Amino acid sequence: MKETNEPIMGLGNPIEGKNFTGEAWLKTLSAEPGFDCQVYNVTFAPGVRNSWHEHSVGQILLCTEGVGYYQEKGKPAQRLKTGDVVNIPANVTHWHGAAPDSQFTHIGITPKASENEAQWFEPVTDVEYAEAVGSK
Amino acid sequence: MKETNEPIMGLGNPIEGKNFTGEAWLKTLSAEPGFDCQVYNVTFAPGVRNSWHEHSVGQILLCTEGVGYYQEKGKPAQRLKTGDVVNIPANVTHWHGAAPDSQFTHIGITPKASENEAQWFEPVTDVEYAEAVGSK
Repeated sequence: MKETNEPIMGLGNPIEGKNFTGEAWLKTLSAEPGFDCQVYNVTFAPGVRNSWHEHSVGQILLCTEGVGYYQEKGKPAQRLKTGDVVNIPANVTHWHGAAPDSQFTHIGITPKASENEAQWFEPVTDVEYAEAVGSK
Repeated sequence: MKETNEPIMGLGNPIEGKNFTGEAWLKTLSAEPGFDCQVYNVTFAPGVRNSWHEHSVGQILLCTEGVGYYQEKGKPAQRLKTGDVVNIPANVTHWHGAAPDSQFTHIGITPKASENEAQWFEPVTDVEYAEAVGSK
């Protein structure tokens, strides 16, 4: 049985649905209507990533634990480690997830939540993932 | 010489000015104009707190390391530990800072930054601080 480490901001609940390739967890940290800003903790099991997607305003990732990757369509992947911050631009197709050998946790911040729409596309294939992480 | 531990999101630069009672550090994590949301890491040396203040929209604190306190005017202080989240309501006078014996770090998120004005008031006196943390 695999061991899942509890991240500092908490693990939350398993993410259901088809937008992740395997085990991942979501914990909502803040969703005050008056702030129009949603904050959550996302934890990916090793090798797990989300599908290609984009946000109409953008999103902020704060990498708190483990090693992961972030890739914008058509660009080389970025290796992410504890302390890294990603400002995901508006309407840029991308994915993020764990390194093959590391659980990975980031805080996600969705600003202007009421107008910040996510669009989800195809999964990141094993070939795409291997290429993204292969040379790092 | 006191030892300052590097927090996971980084220490940043010393905070100058009169709104903190002692050593504290600020690292800006995100300040994209298009997001209208500011994110920073604040680290307080043991015993250090900021002055009474308020935000016109409110603010989110994510406690990542150490033990601290948050107090709203007229209420008992809340003891904060790793993993705790505080949604600070709009226009509520409050302070936050470290426990007497612990360095304390939180991420601060300022939503609707362009309209979210901070107002700073008096320092938290030693008597107020001792009362806040005394029974915890």
